Amino acid sequence: MAYLNHNYLKLQAGYLFPEIARRVREFCDANPDAAKRLIRCGIGDVTEPLPRAAIEAMKCAIDELGHRETFHGYGPEQGYEFLRSSIAKCDYRDRNIEIADDEIFVSDGSKCDCGHILDILGAQNKVAVPDPVYPVYVDTNVMAGHTGPVRKDGGYEGIHYLPCTAENNFVPEPPRERVDLAYLCFPNNPTGAVASRAQLSNWVEYARENDALLLFDAAYEAYISDAEIPHSIFEIPGAKECAMEFRSFSKNGGFTGVRCGFTVLPKLVLARTGDGRRLPLHPLWQRRWSTKSNSVSYPVQRGAEALYSPEGRKEIRALIDHYMGNAKILGSAATSAGLQVFGGVNAPYLWVKTPNGLTSWQLFDRMLRELNVVITPGAGFGAQGEGYFRISAFNSRENAEEVARRLKKLL
Amino acid sequence: MAYLNHNYLKLQAGYLFPEIARRVREFCDANPDAAKRLIRCGIGDVTEPLPRAAIEAMKCAIDELGHRETFHGYGPEQGYEFLRSSIAKCDYRDRNIEIADDEIFVSDGSKCDCGHILDILGAQNKVAVPDPVYPVYVDTNVMAGHTGPVRKDGGYEGIHYLPCTAENNFVPEPPRERVDLAYLCFPNNPTGAVASRAQLSNWVEYARENDALLLFDAAYEAYISDAEIPHSIFEIPGAKECAMEFRSFSKNGGFTGVRCGFTVLPKLVLARTGDGRRLPLHPLWQRRWSTKSNSVSYPVQRGAEALYSPEGRKEIRALIDHYMGNAKILGSAATSAGLQVFGGVNAPYLWVKTPNGLTSWQLFDRMLRELNVVITPGAGFGAQGEGYFRISAFNSRENAEEVARRLKKLL
Repeated sequence: MAYLNHNYLKLQAGYLFPEIARRVREFCDANPDAAKRLIRCGIGDVTEPLPRAAIEAMKCAIDELGHRETFHGYGPEQGYEFLRSSIAKCDYRDRNIEIADDEIFVSDGSKCDCGHILDILGAQNKVAVPDPVYPVYVDTNVMAGHTGPVRKDGGYEGIHYLPCTAENNFVPEPPRERVDLAYLCFPNNPTGAVASRAQLSNWVEYARENDALLLFDAAYEAYISDAEIPHSIFEIPGAKECAMEFRSFSKNGGFTGVRCGFTVLPKLVLARTGDGRRLPLHPLWQRRWSTKSNSVSYPVQRGAEALYSPEGRKEIRALIDHYMGNAKILGSAATSAGLQVFGGVNAPYLWVKTPNGLTSWQLFDRMLRELNVVITPGAGFGAQGEGYFRISAFNSRENAEEVARRLKKLL
Repeated sequence: MAYLNHNYLKLQAGYLFPEIARRVREFCDANPDAAKRLIRCGIGDVTEPLPRAAIEAMKCAIDELGHRETFHGYGPEQGYEFLRSSIAKCDYRDRNIEIADDEIFVSDGSKCDCGHILDILGAQNKVAVPDPVYPVYVDTNVMAGHTGPVRKDGGYEGIHYLPCTAENNFVPEPPRERVDLAYLCFPNNPTGAVASRAQLSNWVEYARENDALLLFDAAYEAYISDAEIPHSIFEIPGAKECAMEFRSFSKNGGFTGVRCGFTVLPKLVLARTGDGRRLPLHPLWQRRWSTKSNSVSYPVQRGAEALYSPEGRKEIRALIDHYMGNAKILGSAATSAGLQVFGGVNAPYLWVKTPNGLTSWQLFDRMLRELNVVITPGAGFGAQGEGYFRISAFNSRENAEEVARRLKKLL
């Protein structure tokens, strides 16, 4: 009989969001009237229509597929040059960051990339993750066998957790001990925190001194409003030798259902073999894509390219302004309700202290029952998330305003 | 310094198709006039326009994304119910195979699925693959560390190869020894062979007796013209306890650039843990999708659904007839030229013996230089592929006829 990957058996319960979906479904089935009032501020899913520029480009690309002369079959496994060059130019070179087109790898989303990157990394790496954290970083390491069993607090043996607390403004310092891989996510999901240039420089210095690799998730960079905050880890000198970056069109262009993102892996990034050689990771990542994928749907790549057009950029700006307007409304309401609120300024997430010592799942159930509002319980993101909850600003203005009204009734 | 996955260093040269692309590019750069005459019968990529039904459905879905009321963000990670139920009904239940909607997992292609499936399987499995074989099965096992180093003949230590030769009509018998996983692909890429009901029953019997898991790749099932040949491994009694199936919309609906496929994993399929428990694989595969993916682009899923409409089916039929018309033309021409030809009747591939004892790469270079036709050298598919080459029938009629004319000049 075939063996299964026993590491999967170490995983706790459901992945966070399916578990939330299950509780919401149960509540709605039992309370059909309340279900009608339900407002979801849980999962970070966009709600507003796709930019016209992307729509037109995708429809045009689909029409091309309808004629033999303009038909496109298999594309380059790392993504079409038209998209990789738009990304490298607009997101990097125009901002004085030297990234080559072939250092960009187009994918069907940064959730996928965060998982797949472990394909090319060794099992013996010592891994550091923030706590609280986007669960995908941890769960994919568990699946790959990079951890021991789960501990009582929900963490896993063998992972080095970096506590993110109100005391450090939710930006962890590099650890004292040596790790090989460190996941960083700024603007942060779930806390909404951002890292300053000095803080990121600290991390790059640590990585260079310890020969560590930084896995930098910048999926929310478009939400940065403070001009001093870096959008990319590659704004930090030296990062091109010790970091790779994950980006997504989900949260700027509203592509959560369209599926497109990319990674940036500079050719200078090296990793070691068991016998002490130092080799670039870039050819391994390229090989991984050639062997395991045929890249992303052609119309989707054309849609992503259109986000870089003047029209596309304007529409993205309007979407970001809309969601950040919601963040402001929700943040004020939560503060007025006497809650302690973090984030929501350079990120579409508010990270809020639970009142009266409620646990985060208690608060989740209470908000579901009493306010008919779905939030994300902080404990779902790690032990340090206990005592907090996340409110997502991804919503219509009308819903954000209604949630703001209901929040007043919480206390 | 982070460790890399040293298993990648065992991989030989490039993945087959990038290597072909490299040789073709070099030839074309050096011979611009010949480049204009070049006809590609190498990679199995479709050439004909997408079915209108799929085009209309995708454009309509994109329009939905343009309005808040009909916007779709994150979808279910295993695929939308509308698509999974169309698949389960039309491809299985309508053909008297009891497959439930939630035993279908929608993906961005079966190449990806063939790689990802190893995520949920243990590293200690003894793996059998046909030879010649679609390189992805082997290379993904190498990457996952399931093999030793490469041997002189291009095979890998630790893999159990199943020779497919003219003597066994390119359909391997189950091995005498016990293996845990066996990859099977019918209609076969690259040989174009099909397995009879009796031959597949033999495999299912072997799997049940040895507690093995069959990984059945049916990407080309739509090309079967012989009414006696099974389209699915699940037509064989007992297969639902020992097999999973990979399917694709690439070769029936022409989705090579649109990207959609699926796996079928029955809930009855069990695998064992190191300590001897027997557990279903289905929840692991489900968890893998929840954690590492956000499923496939919404418009793409609507496009795939449309392939099951009466209009879509008619258009698929026309596409298959077109490509199989090419196969007939190419097969006759090759036979007239004195070549020994296999396949091409229930599959869009012709598997042809190289003349005059040429190696398959020698023949590749000669056809490129003298006929300006790109084929795939058999050796790229494994040691047993030496002495053969694959001609793909995926082409316009005009090109197929022109290749037929040129083939006469080969000998």
